[in-house]
Amino acid sequence: MSRTNNSLDELIEALRCLPGVGPKSAQRMAYHLLQYDQAGAHRLALALDRALQRIRRCAKCNTFTEEEVCALCTSPKRDPSLLCVVETPADQAVMEQTLAYQGLYFVLMGRLSPLDGIGPKEIGLDALQRRVSDGIVKEVILATNFTNEGEATAHYIHEMLQGRGLKITRIARGVPVGGELEYVDLGTLAQAFYERREA
Amino acid sequence: MSRTNNSLDELIEALRCLPGVGPKSAQRMAYHLLQYDQAGAHRLALALDRALQRIRRCAKCNTFTEEEVCALCTSPKRDPSLLCVVETPADQAVMEQTLAYQGLYFVLMGRLSPLDGIGPKEIGLDALQRRVSDGIVKEVILATNFTNEGEATAHYIHEMLQGRGLKITRIARGVPVGGELEYVDLGTLAQAFYERREA
Repeated sequence: MSRTNNSLDELIEALRCLPGVGPKSAQRMAYHLLQYDQAGAHRLALALDRALQRIRRCAKCNTFTEEEVCALCTSPKRDPSLLCVVETPADQAVMEQTLAYQGLYFVLMGRLSPLDGIGPKEIGLDALQRRVSDGIVKEVILATNFTNEGEATAHYIHEMLQGRGLKITRIARGVPVGGELEYVDLGTLAQAFYERREA
Repeated sequence: MSRTNNSLDELIEALRCLPGVGPKSAQRMAYHLLQYDQAGAHRLALALDRALQRIRRCAKCNTFTEEEVCALCTSPKRDPSLLCVVETPADQAVMEQTLAYQGLYFVLMGRLSPLDGIGPKEIGLDALQRRVSDGIVKEVILATNFTNEGEATAHYIHEMLQGRGLKITRIARGVPVGGELEYVDLGTLAQAFYERREA
């Protein structure tokens, strides 16, 4: 590589802001764009600019949106007495795909992780507290991940919202649908025993 | 996801022009940029624009450059009688890292692959033919990959350049340096036998 090739080096370096992209992948991506997909590269630059300009946080649920309040939060078809707390917009998208839930959401945009300096304020738990105090929300469904951080976050929110007359629930944990016991990990199986319910 | 979130959806779609990035990764990348690295996203958009504007092909070696002729081709320190033919700028970069070669390069920007519609014209073999006719190049070193396509490309170039008084060589194939015979694949080992030389 010639040393004067600054805009190529800069592009490779800039591509490394993408999660999971190291120096090798960034180089491959840059070569690919320049050689085979200049139109795609142009579209990407435009899309980045546009997204940075337009996208902000929904005032009600904290997810990404171009409006003051997102379309889901303003939809008359959703049950405003149910509020499902998820970690990320990706989690929210997956929940929506199940078609199993008709309430509203609150998106933390993260999880409690004290070691990384992510405390209650960083994931907007004060905003969640205001959100559930609207007099309409009756049940808060905790749908954070079943990782250590996700569990700790759910526990913290549970403690925080107790004594306000809200029903607080956690999505169920157990053997996956279609799961064969032989192949389920022992922790999940033990938990499924522990949380068994009447058939 | 709300349906009015167009610039987010557009960003996710645009990120898929990157090689190896599917819908899930593109979504993860978009969320990451918007939430944690807006500065990085801005830098990436700028770098893409700049690269698209400035980068073109070196008139001598066909690699990416911002000049008419790249810095390596104009360097007085390189031996202009040696011309190494590689498939991609990445291959060239790796060759340079070895510090074992002091000649010039010709970058095909691809390999012959008739099934994908990539013929001699698509990888600039006419330009290569002109390049080696400068009266200065004495040896053409074929350093395409040892894949089927790379081998076919080397073979084609060999045939094409024969009878011009040029020395045409191919980089050596064999057991890797530090390789233990027990773990070397059989094809490589057989080839190493076949191409054995006096010790």
